[in-house]
Amino acid sequence: MITAQHGPQPADFADVRATNLAVVLRHVRRHAPCSRADIAAVTGLNKATVSSLVADLIERRLVRESGLTEHRIGRPATMLMLDGTAYAGLGVTIAADQVTAVALDLAGEQLLSWRRAVAGGSAAGGSGGPASPGRLTSAVATVVGRAVNRLTAAGRQVLKLTVGVPGLVDADGTVRLASDLGWHDVDLRGELTRALRKPGYDVVVENDANLAVLAEYRFGAHAATANLIHVTNAAGVGAGIMLDGRLVRGGLGYSGELGHLEVEPGGPACPCGRRGCLEAVAGAAAIVRQVRPETAGEGAVLDLAAEVDEVVRRARKADRATIDVLGRAGQRVGRALASTVNLLNPEVVALGGHYVALAPWLLPAAEVELAAGSIAPGGGGCRLVASALGADAAAIGGAARLLDELDGGLLPRPSGT
Amino acid sequence: MITAQHGPQPADFADVRATNLAVVLRHVRRHAPCSRADIAAVTGLNKATVSSLVADLIERRLVRESGLTEHRIGRPATMLMLDGTAYAGLGVTIAADQVTAVALDLAGEQLLSWRRAVAGGSAAGGSGGPASPGRLTSAVATVVGRAVNRLTAAGRQVLKLTVGVPGLVDADGTVRLASDLGWHDVDLRGELTRALRKPGYDVVVENDANLAVLAEYRFGAHAATANLIHVTNAAGVGAGIMLDGRLVRGGLGYSGELGHLEVEPGGPACPCGRRGCLEAVAGAAAIVRQVRPETAGEGAVLDLAAEVDEVVRRARKADRATIDVLGRAGQRVGRALASTVNLLNPEVVALGGHYVALAPWLLPAAEVELAAGSIAPGGGGCRLVASALGADAAAIGGAARLLDELDGGLLPRPSGT
Repeated sequence: MITAQHGPQPADFADVRATNLAVVLRHVRRHAPCSRADIAAVTGLNKATVSSLVADLIERRLVRESGLTEHRIGRPATMLMLDGTAYAGLGVTIAADQVTAVALDLAGEQLLSWRRAVAGGSAAGGSGGPASPGRLTSAVATVVGRAVNRLTAAGRQVLKLTVGVPGLVDADGTVRLASDLGWHDVDLRGELTRALRKPGYDVVVENDANLAVLAEYRFGAHAATANLIHVTNAAGVGAGIMLDGRLVRGGLGYSGELGHLEVEPGGPACPCGRRGCLEAVAGAAAIVRQVRPETAGEGAVLDLAAEVDEVVRRARKADRATIDVLGRAGQRVGRALASTVNLLNPEVVALGGHYVALAPWLLPAAEVELAAGSIAPGGGGCRLVASALGADAAAIGGAARLLDELDGGLLPRPSGT
Repeated sequence: MITAQHGPQPADFADVRATNLAVVLRHVRRHAPCSRADIAAVTGLNKATVSSLVADLIERRLVRESGLTEHRIGRPATMLMLDGTAYAGLGVTIAADQVTAVALDLAGEQLLSWRRAVAGGSAAGGSGGPASPGRLTSAVATVVGRAVNRLTAAGRQVLKLTVGVPGLVDADGTVRLASDLGWHDVDLRGELTRALRKPGYDVVVENDANLAVLAEYRFGAHAATANLIHVTNAAGVGAGIMLDGRLVRGGLGYSGELGHLEVEPGGPACPCGRRGCLEAVAGAAAIVRQVRPETAGEGAVLDLAAEVDEVVRRARKADRATIDVLGRAGQRVGRALASTVNLLNPEVVALGGHYVALAPWLLPAAEVELAAGSIAPGGGGCRLVASALGADAAAIGGAARLLDELDGGLLPRPSGT
């Protein structure tokens, strides 16, 4: 509203049909089953126009006629439904030792959810270090290939692949820096496109926390909260930030690096090369290291999920040392979030990833610190919650990018058109 | 694009004229002098429509025919100009001891720029504490009344008054907290509207840093930078944040409280009640206190502008102690901005208010700390600069809200229509 770029465009009558197609589709997605007459009544479009638009959407396999009819005065009305069956969006996320894939149809139904371990850097797979970019990329290509085959065999056309990476991702899909993967300047979009042999679908690469907050915004317990932050916590800690219902990317796409806010000056070393970052102090691996110094060495924590389970077990048994570690971690999370709240005044911050399981012991301390560190009374109304989404939030958000495009009025292009 | 709220609306043909009026006006604002034929060629609207739209805009006193004509083939074309003469927007900012007013016409030309001192809380005006809400509000009403009289006498109609306050401002214009003014829960919009006796123009209240960044975005040296932050520094420190060309307000309007990021745990006390806030460590008053402990007591610094001038004088004379203070302040600014850059990846951060004069000694240290504290190489491309706008940036931004509305397609309603 403020900017010239966002100012009004000339009303081009040729665009009216595209806009109206999107309007009708949106109505069906929200209010199905509904009749053509319902659509005309709500949108203000005339009935002949609605019929023509619906015919177009049926041909594009986005809408179908249900067997239902509604009897009012006059002819029975055929009820319309979203046709979710023809298309799929695919989301894949990359961690140091695994690849996760989720596919959704246009109704938001989950079509598949896979997790595949990837062996580490050494041939034996036992080094504990992250797998090399080449190895991870080819693991992604393999998973994607299988998923696409599965979906195609089920009669689905994959329209979009979105790959989430825990790091700084440029607009062209190059991973500038992913310290938890040990990556610098990896042209992931290019390499994947080559490995997939010029696939017929769109391939995009995005920061994984950005994808996770899109999932939170669409499917989370606080869906559609306009000012919403999702904090990821796998090997690293990151934040996806939505303000006014829009994803914040920043100038180069490097926003949301919550894990690298300094919360303990001179504190422990972080994979990023600095000290005292939130990730190094209160990320899942840091928590594991503090709770079980005997098993966790200096390098990456092996099998982080199992180690977090062990931390949860100890906390459930009211192990004092474990609970103290989680309380201190919560304080540090609260401190980083206080800065975030002072700058952005979000309505909800959802702690995701490994923080979900740790939340019962971590959240109370984080809430206290957040309220104490925020100038607005009561943290400016910010609610700090555990995400209802699991570790595959980012993959879900990636798969849902197709739905985001649909919401934005961009209709899929079926193959052969 | 992501949200349902931002999704497509049905194309209402009744809105087409309003949209097209805004499109034509925008074209004239940017490209004047221009002919009706030029407008038709660029916008794709037909000439009869353009003529009708232009006639409407001339009647609304937004566009006028210039004396110029352009001779091409056929009839000479009358050239159109923006008619900036009929309307004015007024911006007023409130500080502890002064009120600043700026008026702009629709061409962005400055019509007036006033500054009025307001006596402090005691009757003698010598306490040094901030004036009471009642006293400040009536000072604002007096200044506004005089400005409106002056503008009206010059044939201008004031369409909008925007008042900037250094604090947390609710959407309804209540100042929830302004610690540098000592305000809590002041219904400023209501009180001002009463004091102005139900004025014929729109009255809005906004955080002053938000207004300053709107001025920076429109008139600054880095105007139209999509991801832009302006840091204010008068009695307090605040930030106005624009991301993707949109002002960030947050859930309740409490965003941008950069001055209350903790940059020195356990550091000096802040008027907000906490310790170690950026404002308490590296705000203008904190700098003055460190440079001239002999004159600055515990309370508010008297005549802050004169004191900052003295700091600048000492720095120019290469006074070691002063330069050290400014270097340390710069580090703290850089530390707070590193958190900001990690979260938001802005393209430009402009230091405004008193930081402009102090920038030669403060910026270098801030740049070093910002780069060191940011995970993205080189601060993620963020440029840290001194604002080219002065202390009245927020008042200018307030006056320009009328232009923002115009850019957003909202045409002014002339009186009597």
